[in-house]
Amino acid sequence: MVTKTKKRLVVAAGRSHPELAAAVAEALGTQLVPTEYRTFASGEILTRFEVSIRGCDVFLIQSFGPPVNEWMMELLIMLDAAKRASAKRITVVAPYYPYSRQDKKGRGREPISARLIADLLRTAGADRVMSVDLHAAQIQGFFDGPVDHLFAKPVLLGHFQQSLTDEDRARLTVVSPDTGRVRVADQWSDSLGAPLAIIHKRRDPNLANQVTVHEIVGHVDGRVCLLVDDMIDTGGTIMMAAQALKANGAEKVIVAATHAVFSDPATERLQDPAIDEVVVTDTIPVPERERFPGLTILPIAPLLARAIREVFEDGSVTSMFDGAA
Amino acid sequence: MVTKTKKRLVVAAGRSHPELAAAVAEALGTQLVPTEYRTFASGEILTRFEVSIRGCDVFLIQSFGPPVNEWMMELLIMLDAAKRASAKRITVVAPYYPYSRQDKKGRGREPISARLIADLLRTAGADRVMSVDLHAAQIQGFFDGPVDHLFAKPVLLGHFQQSLTDEDRARLTVVSPDTGRVRVADQWSDSLGAPLAIIHKRRDPNLANQVTVHEIVGHVDGRVCLLVDDMIDTGGTIMMAAQALKANGAEKVIVAATHAVFSDPATERLQDPAIDEVVVTDTIPVPERERFPGLTILPIAPLLARAIREVFEDGSVTSMFDGAA
Amino acid sequence: MVTKTKKRLVVAAGRSHPELAAAVAEALGTQLVPTEYRTFASGEILTRFEVSIRGCDVFLIQSFGPPVNEWMMELLIMLDAAKRASAKRITVVAPYYPYSRQDKKGRGREPISARLIADLLRTAGADRVMSVDLHAAQIQGFFDGPVDHLFAKPVLLGHFQQSLTDEDRARLTVVSPDTGRVRVADQWSDSLGAPLAIIHKRRDPNLANQVTVHEIVGHVDGRVCLLVDDMIDTGGTIMMAAQALKANGAEKVIVAATHAVFSDPATERLQDPAIDEVVVTDTIPVPERERFPGLTILPIAPLLARAIREVFEDGSVTSMFDGAA
Amino acid sequence: MVTKTKKRLVVAAGRSHPELAAAVAEALGTQLVPTEYRTFASGEILTRFEVSIRGCDVFLIQSFGPPVNEWMMELLIMLDAAKRASAKRITVVAPYYPYSRQDKKGRGREPISARLIADLLRTAGADRVMSVDLHAAQIQGFFDGPVDHLFAKPVLLGHFQQSLTDEDRARLTVVSPDTGRVRVADQWSDSLGAPLAIIHKRRDPNLANQVTVHEIVGHVDGRVCLLVDDMIDTGGTIMMAAQALKANGAEKVIVAATHAVFSDPATERLQDPAIDEVVVTDTIPVPERERFPGLTILPIAPLLARAIREVFEDGSVTSMFDGAA
Amino acid sequence: MVTKTKKRLVVAAGRSHPELAAAVAEALGTQLVPTEYRTFASGEILTRFEVSIRGCDVFLIQSFGPPVNEWMMELLIMLDAAKRASAKRITVVAPYYPYSRQDKKGRGREPISARLIADLLRTAGADRVMSVDLHAAQIQGFFDGPVDHLFAKPVLLGHFQQSLTDEDRARLTVVSPDTGRVRVADQWSDSLGAPLAIIHKRRDPNLANQVTVHEIVGHVDGRVCLLVDDMIDTGGTIMMAAQALKANGAEKVIVAATHAVFSDPATERLQDPAIDEVVVTDTIPVPERERFPGLTILPIAPLLARAIREVFEDGSVTSMFDGAA
Amino acid sequence: MVTKTKKRLVVAAGRSHPELAAAVAEALGTQLVPTEYRTFASGEILTRFEVSIRGCDVFLIQSFGPPVNEWMMELLIMLDAAKRASAKRITVVAPYYPYSRQDKKGRGREPISARLIADLLRTAGADRVMSVDLHAAQIQGFFDGPVDHLFAKPVLLGHFQQSLTDEDRARLTVVSPDTGRVRVADQWSDSLGAPLAIIHKRRDPNLANQVTVHEIVGHVDGRVCLLVDDMIDTGGTIMMAAQALKANGAEKVIVAATHAVFSDPATERLQDPAIDEVVVTDTIPVPERERFPGLTILPIAPLLARAIREVFEDGSVTSMFDGAA
Repeated sequence: MVTKTKKRLVVAAGRSHPELAAAVAEALGTQLVPTEYRTFASGEILTRFEVSIRGCDVFLIQSFGPPVNEWMMELLIMLDAAKRASAKRITVVAPYYPYSRQDKKGRGREPISARLIADLLRTAGADRVMSVDLHAAQIQGFFDGPVDHLFAKPVLLGHFQQSLTDEDRARLTVVSPDTGRVRVADQWSDSLGAPLAIIHKRRDPNLANQVTVHEIVGHVDGRVCLLVDDMIDTGGTIMMAAQALKANGAEKVIVAATHAVFSDPATERLQDPAIDEVVVTDTIPVPERERFPGLTILPIAPLLARAIREVFEDGSVTSMFDGAA
Repeated sequence: MVTKTKKRLVVAAGRSHPELAAAVAEALGTQLVPTEYRTFASGEILTRFEVSIRGCDVFLIQSFGPPVNEWMMELLIMLDAAKRASAKRITVVAPYYPYSRQDKKGRGREPISARLIADLLRTAGADRVMSVDLHAAQIQGFFDGPVDHLFAKPVLLGHFQQSLTDEDRARLTVVSPDTGRVRVADQWSDSLGAPLAIIHKRRDPNLANQVTVHEIVGHVDGRVCLLVDDMIDTGGTIMMAAQALKANGAEKVIVAATHAVFSDPATERLQDPAIDEVVVTDTIPVPERERFPGLTILPIAPLLARAIREVFEDGSVTSMFDGAA
Repeated sequence: MVTKTKKRLVVAAGRSHPELAAAVAEALGTQLVPTEYRTFASGEILTRFEVSIRGCDVFLIQSFGPPVNEWMMELLIMLDAAKRASAKRITVVAPYYPYSRQDKKGRGREPISARLIADLLRTAGADRVMSVDLHAAQIQGFFDGPVDHLFAKPVLLGHFQQSLTDEDRARLTVVSPDTGRVRVADQWSDSLGAPLAIIHKRRDPNLANQVTVHEIVGHVDGRVCLLVDDMIDTGGTIMMAAQALKANGAEKVIVAATHAVFSDPATERLQDPAIDEVVVTDTIPVPERERFPGLTILPIAPLLARAIREVFEDGSVTSMFDGAA
Repeated sequence: MVTKTKKRLVVAAGRSHPELAAAVAEALGTQLVPTEYRTFASGEILTRFEVSIRGCDVFLIQSFGPPVNEWMMELLIMLDAAKRASAKRITVVAPYYPYSRQDKKGRGREPISARLIADLLRTAGADRVMSVDLHAAQIQGFFDGPVDHLFAKPVLLGHFQQSLTDEDRARLTVVSPDTGRVRVADQWSDSLGAPLAIIHKRRDPNLANQVTVHEIVGHVDGRVCLLVDDMIDTGGTIMMAAQALKANGAEKVIVAATHAVFSDPATERLQDPAIDEVVVTDTIPVPERERFPGLTILPIAPLLARAIREVFEDGSVTSMFDGAA
Repeated sequence: MVTKTKKRLVVAAGRSHPELAAAVAEALGTQLVPTEYRTFASGEILTRFEVSIRGCDVFLIQSFGPPVNEWMMELLIMLDAAKRASAKRITVVAPYYPYSRQDKKGRGREPISARLIADLLRTAGADRVMSVDLHAAQIQGFFDGPVDHLFAKPVLLGHFQQSLTDEDRARLTVVSPDTGRVRVADQWSDSLGAPLAIIHKRRDPNLANQVTVHEIVGHVDGRVCLLVDDMIDTGGTIMMAAQALKANGAEKVIVAATHAVFSDPATERLQDPAIDEVVVTDTIPVPERERFPGLTILPIAPLLARAIREVFEDGSVTSMFDGAA
Repeated sequence: MVTKTKKRLVVAAGRSHPELAAAVAEALGTQLVPTEYRTFASGEILTRFEVSIRGCDVFLIQSFGPPVNEWMMELLIMLDAAKRASAKRITVVAPYYPYSRQDKKGRGREPISARLIADLLRTAGADRVMSVDLHAAQIQGFFDGPVDHLFAKPVLLGHFQQSLTDEDRARLTVVSPDTGRVRVADQWSDSLGAPLAIIHKRRDPNLANQVTVHEIVGHVDGRVCLLVDDMIDTGGTIMMAAQALKANGAEKVIVAATHAVFSDPATERLQDPAIDEVVVTDTIPVPERERFPGLTILPIAPLLARAIREVFEDGSVTSMFDGAA
């Protein structure tokens, strides 16, 4: 008994970001697999695929805005269900990798939760992971299997190529909001052919302790400053960086980030007068109430859909980014 | 360089049930290890042991009332921290095992979340598990390592030996609230020398579909009925069982269960006139607002503390229960 | 060098139940893969596939009648051979899952052999397991991978739909032979629209110890009793249940079970006058000498063959049972 | 809570060779841990340790005479029980390693059962293995953990140093019964300072096919031949070797082997007139009915007991054999 | 979204033996996948596949002449890259298996490096291994997965069938250079219908210690001796064996071996007058400077290419060798 | 049989850095365990512990200067030997973690060798790892077990506290040699209360491509610049940074780094006139011929010895660095 082998694509999703999941499915010309979700009164979750996914190439999309732990447990439970339902291969699509900032021990006896997440995904049944702009590229190495690391920079750059005036582009300086993120700013500086500046927070040695100075390393006077980071959480670092830039003569401050974590009080801080514009993607859902004038949210679904198609058809994800990974 | 090996007991706990954790530590004559807990605005959790636990025999207590997924992620993160902090051995003490009702596939393409939980604990660093009255004894087999399975029956029985009048004891019938839990009722029936009855829910063949009859298998007329179960969740099954018993002539209905999950609207239902008394343990915290007259909560900490001591000192947990496991 | 991928089905079998294996292969329109079996004078077993199975989808059938340990070791050895022979995927088809009653620790320091079996199969090379009517549905969770759980109830029910007179059906009561198996009887009660009764063994409190009373919970007087269980081993429980039923006025006692373990002295006991008819399937071979008048053995091969075809062709096994798993 | 760590030795055994287990325990000045063994009518085995072994250093002795598959399953089940009973460390003591001749693939699609056995032991819970005279030293490499490889040669040599006359020693030739075992004979030749001969079986090119010639490579005329091998199974190779030696003028043929597998018809063949004496150890039990005049069985328990003591006390097993392993 | 599954063959190679890799690719009608190799000044290696290998069936060729540890690390790094680049299946093609002589512990506290190598390959990402003439067939059992074990004997025999005169064939004796390799010589003896002789090194009991006698077991006077071994390392054993054969009257000594390790001073020793001819294969590259008159190097690429094709097309490797493995 | 458990410390080492290993052993008041090392003519390595290490707490020191791959394979082989020799626990002490710069994929289809190294160590037998100044702190998360991460900053700072004049300290600026290492410089800036500057390499947009400008972000004119990095490899980055600093008016350039990889032509470059002083530790051996005036090598052994003692005695490594990890 011999048969030709076929491969069937299944796109499934948790409940964290239905708009994104629907957009990815649509971009792929398919529909999300019908799935039953229940959260019992006790808080326990049960999910079930309503049609057979036996032998399928399953892509399971989950976004990680709040409540992040709920979505993580839901994802793990969906992975277990998919594995036991005889999926052939399961790729977790986590546009924002949760717990990515806990990627090392800051102090003794801390966890390395980003590695833990990788191991939990593996244990529950994930064969592969796809994610966008990992907080640290080393997180790829936390997962014991292939990781497709996508970059939102082309999406964000595409936006600025259209929105920036020639005058602004000529005066552009790329700014890193702290010393730990300089490499990202460096890459933007390279892509845009613009100089680099860095905000350097340090304790003022001349004053009583705990007073932090936001020193600017580089030149920003009269410049259009593009503050770039991989994510905006509570917005504190960004707001203070913007204020420091303006205080040092910056003419305009534009903020660009991939992941809009937007924890309280981010919405308030990002409307600080020092900030002229904020551009993010929708890897994490931004509820209506957290949106504000001056905020632009770019869709990430086309990027995810294209990468999923490359993976499904054994194409090349690397080629989407000129070889970077 | 040679040294005598020492063993140090460390009792740690998540934030789910501080009273229980404190009671266990006190019963062991020790204190909970100082631990830093943070939940960031983004919802991500960070925990850190504030003193060295290197080489220690760590018992990590977490209870699983709501929000169950938060507590699970917190537990996994604490396990990772403990493992990386060079704990010698880590025992998870989960008085109520979460997701224990998802111990099999009810329908195709469902998860088996109770097995998943076991694997997640293992992956995160748990060497052993201790739990009370597993919903199904087979869950012991889900964990790839030793499980200390404790029984609350002695605690509950001890209570009834004091609270029941001789007259009531003579008229006692043990009742299983449904056909899936008969074995538990059977064991109580055996311990108390009392007859057994069973509530049998089935569709009424004489009426339109979906009407369920609560048929009573056995004799309850004029009896003091002890309705026993391992847990009470929303209280629906128990309330309807009690009503059926009273409708069939039962004189009194007492409810005994180990785990007070008490999801909404359990508190309301358990105050149904058909129910005369409810006795549970504190494996799960019952907030003040969910307590009511007629509810007795027995402390489980002495049992846990004794079992932890036996494990730490290489004694016997089995001997605590006359050989049962 | 590119080629279209093909999938080839291979059905292989150990020596435990050649009739069943042949029937499955025939129902699939194929033949068992030629296999060499040797048991050396020392008792060690050697098996070898006589033709290439490289890249094949292998289904390896083994039944678990006596000698169960021989067949288990033979199966493990065949798995190792298949794995090293580069089979693409290996599914163990164990119509009766061995050691399934050792699914939990009854007492301290006991093994959980049903879990052990799952781990041994995995270690030796099994990617998947297919079985019929697991003693406890939780056993699915013992295997770290997909389990196709089949149900013989449709096969048995099909038989009774033909063999029972309308008169008998009207008087039918489904009986559980002990309190641990009530859920199975409950499902039959539901399917047949018949009431439920339960045999409740307990120590007689009025007599010296160890005397067991077979109390009947429910009504059986004048009824046609259908005693249902997943397996019949030595037949003791069933015989005593039948006797108790007859003693309580039952008019007829029919026994239905999936697995005919039939250990000594089952054949003798099942011919007890209290038992009118016994219906089983051939998941385990019943030798001629153990057959008797009143015994009906239904073929399980069609069910297995259909499930194997669904698995091979990436269809749905769940759909064979209206969604149950 | 701090305590000094203690280590407790537990010697446990399956049912395969009670005399040997008892002798080992006695030599260690201890007793076998009380264990309950049951073989149900269905053939399934259940074992249970009757006292706590929590935290103990367990040595689990199983010999592998027939029925070898029963004893293997019993051993695996005991391992599972010991692991779940919280033994600290478990060493399998298998004086004869089962399936050791299936240590490589002789033909395509064969299993490598000796590796499988190692993996099964590991999966079931064995941390370490102790064995005597592995059929191939490479089997040590099959187990993913420490293996204590013991040698019976000192035991056997000790016997011959007493039993051989000076005259015989002067005329001694060590003989390998086939070309695959020459290295063992070579080591004996070295220890005894005696020349070496080899029996070389090959097809006679001058005669019709399948006729095997037992060619002797080396000189045996007038010599006292010591035929050495690691095991005697059916005795065919040994008998034919002895006959060939006598036919070529050997004056006496003494057979020495560690493992007395003695499968049918070994007892008969070993009484062939060409064989003057047979010396083995009791790594495998030799039932009374298989013993015969001219057979000497040396006790292996002292060697095992000494090695167990070295392991328990963190001494050196290597030092027992002048560095060999 | 459904697509037919295709399989693409990719042949990749490390830098150890470019001629062999190219010959294999050519024999398969394909080209080596373009790969970037860098060895940094620090000695660390970086490799990168220059085109996508996503979903491919990758065969990764590495030979293990000196510097063996460099080539091993390079292979492991390439495996990691291939695994992370989403190769579907990775087969390591190691014509000569490195560290194969460390296949057991010779003394206590030694490693079993051949097992370690198998585990390292597995960890880095190898799904399968293909090798030629393993030093011990048991090494197949070291790898936890399928091993395709190829034999060079047909290649070598093919050569001798052409090069030997009828006269020489009539006088041929197969000789094992020591007692540990007799089985290989035995197989040659069988294939060629020629008698067997063995070189037996042992300490001379009549002389001061450490003096080794090269005793010849069997007859070599006036014979054409074919000294066979799996590999030639420093050539010491072979040279002394050849000298002993000539001293005992051998007329000609021809050496045949699969693996030309040729460590210093092999080239010099193999030109000893006692050796008339040396025949090897190119599983290991032999640099020009180590070649000498009388040395014949047979190409192994056709054998590897045929085996790769059988594996890729799910054919049979076993059938290439009449069932041997 | 009961005994008190003792713990024995064993310090072992590969051949990569004998001076360091000896210094660590001496600082611990013990001696390196006698070990036999052989590199065969074929390049294969064999190591053997000459005395029993059964049950010991083994610390295995290996440094990773060139030839790094040789030392890695030696370490893996020693781990295998230690594991099989029944060491109780094995900690790899790799003062410089090899392949630490390959901690992420720079481009598609690259390996993540730093993760691979972690997995290879684990597979070979390492329970724990100890290392100094990991190139990325995330590497801690690559190892599936505890990692003791030590910092050389106290050692280096201690040196500068003695060697710097007050005048120099007052004019001190900490400089990061590129944008990827700013966080390290930031920490130094914090410890020393000195401002920060950064060398920013970027392509000059005004000139033909590939011309790199070493832009200085921050103020260095008239300053004493302390260029800090975790390692110096070929010295190119450092030399060009120093030249750029001097060109921008720096008065003095002092270089501080933990790991002196010193690949060719580091020695030459570090003697560039732009560099006034170089301070490193001896985590990697610096041969006599690579030393030069102006180079200070600080001993790392005291730090390692103290950490080993803390680990062995279940103390706290974290406390050595004020909580950092």
